[in-house]
Amino acid sequence: MTGTPAPTAPLFERMALVGIGLIGSSLARAARRHGLVREIVCSARSQTTCDKALELGLVERASTDSAAIVEDADLVVLCTPVGTYADIAAAIAPRLRAGAVVTDVGSVKQAVLRDVGPHLPDGVHLVPGHPVAGTEHSGPESGFAELFEGRWCILTPPAGTNAEAVRRVAELWTRVGSNVEMMEASHHDRVLAITSHLPHLIAYTIVGTATDLEASTQSEVIKFSAGGFRDFTRIAASDPEMWRDIFLNNREAVLEIIQRFTEDLTMLQRAIRWGEGDVLEDLFTRTRAIRRGIIQAKQA
Amino acid sequence: MTGTPAPTAPLFERMALVGIGLIGSSLARAARRHGLVREIVCSARSQTTCDKALELGLVERASTDSAAIVEDADLVVLCTPVGTYADIAAAIAPRLRAGAVVTDVGSVKQAVLRDVGPHLPDGVHLVPGHPVAGTEHSGPESGFAELFEGRWCILTPPAGTNAEAVRRVAELWTRVGSNVEMMEASHHDRVLAITSHLPHLIAYTIVGTATDLEASTQSEVIKFSAGGFRDFTRIAASDPEMWRDIFLNNREAVLEIIQRFTEDLTMLQRAIRWGEGDVLEDLFTRTRAIRRGIIQAKQA
Repeated sequence: MTGTPAPTAPLFERMALVGIGLIGSSLARAARRHGLVREIVCSARSQTTCDKALELGLVERASTDSAAIVEDADLVVLCTPVGTYADIAAAIAPRLRAGAVVTDVGSVKQAVLRDVGPHLPDGVHLVPGHPVAGTEHSGPESGFAELFEGRWCILTPPAGTNAEAVRRVAELWTRVGSNVEMMEASHHDRVLAITSHLPHLIAYTIVGTATDLEASTQSEVIKFSAGGFRDFTRIAASDPEMWRDIFLNNREAVLEIIQRFTEDLTMLQRAIRWGEGDVLEDLFTRTRAIRRGIIQAKQA
Repeated sequence: MTGTPAPTAPLFERMALVGIGLIGSSLARAARRHGLVREIVCSARSQTTCDKALELGLVERASTDSAAIVEDADLVVLCTPVGTYADIAAAIAPRLRAGAVVTDVGSVKQAVLRDVGPHLPDGVHLVPGHPVAGTEHSGPESGFAELFEGRWCILTPPAGTNAEAVRRVAELWTRVGSNVEMMEASHHDRVLAITSHLPHLIAYTIVGTATDLEASTQSEVIKFSAGGFRDFTRIAASDPEMWRDIFLNNREAVLEIIQRFTEDLTMLQRAIRWGEGDVLEDLFTRTRAIRRGIIQAKQA
């Protein structure tokens, strides 16, 4: 029996981050600040990013070889776009040590079970995770240790996952300031389709619609963006590859919620066409309540 | 010849604000701070709001009677929802003094010329205006003097408007910190349909879509709103009546831009269905450029 570690003892000996963008680098900073891991190593696709991670003091070692970097790690965190998981899992699987915990920070969760699960050897524990936090900035220099404070982190371990592995991943997130919630992967993907995936798709769409306007109008769009548009441009400045992979890997739930959204927009469009002011005002009044809920839940 | 007033001299003797919500009360605060008017009076629909405006020290006098309050004002600013303009114009017209300047702060501008213009007596000058600034909060207590700083104010005086009246309204906005732009009313309404009206309609729609989900999911939507949704809820907390009137009074331009938006969304929906990652990534990359433009234009 090893006993529960004292609050100040590291939770993991060596954390290997596969990918070190906004989330990975924020986790590195937070884990170091709170003394949660003894050593941090990372891999990145480019040598430039590896050099940057070292230069920023985020990691002890960095390599473009994911398989080499996970060796002897007791915690491996996938922090790359979800579409890369299958190849990475296949590459790192033979080098994972027995008892290692593999987790991730991706915004879709069924795809993790599908793409990563089958590759992992017996005795390695998969605990998929999703810190619901972020900014529109990308890259290792964009991260900050406080990113996860007061935010939710959702874990979606399938039934039968090693309980101690789940506990340790949950504690990692708790100790960087997050509230941890357990959920079925399929339920996660449906909830996030509305709270995150649809808002991003809509923001990308509306900014795209604006970029297709004639050049003269476009400069005016920029000039007068304070009327609401600029908030959408912030969301639509998020990482393109990451978001491509999210939509491709949460297709059913996203298509379902787009359909509902389109029906609702069509109703409003019709109300505008026919001058039905009460339909508009009713909805605009109802939507204020959900804002109050978010402010009360301290997620504003 | 009266000569150009010294920089510290008031631009107007008495400013009458018809309506004193977020914008009206911010203008009162800013005008007072910068010494732009000698006296400020206001009207509001309810006695409660009148009392609040007096209690906050925003105005010297307040009344529920718009017609009474504009008497002897050399500047009248309509700060109510656009749908109320026609009735207000009819009511105040007989009490307007010769040479008075009438302006407004509404988000649509063709409707002002249509609804206010015909009521005004000769010798009263109509200079429609639109400060492109705001927050999601409403009411006289929500205003602040800095709201207009660094923002644009668009004026849409029709051809033949008294040049001195236009100059004085422009100076008022310049001296509260805004950049002033002159524009055709119809052009204004088309540009703002994309930078402001569509974003608000979309935000109201998506928050509405979420409120129609089963109650259990709804509490999760609030909990996990940090993934993008919360930004939409902020926009969708804007004043319902004001926004109802904007959509009803900019129908053609809004319907046209909804149509474009829907086509673009349908294209993305199809790309998600058929797994066309390159279509998604191309758009998501293009949209970053417009964000950079907004940051460079200091409107972020």
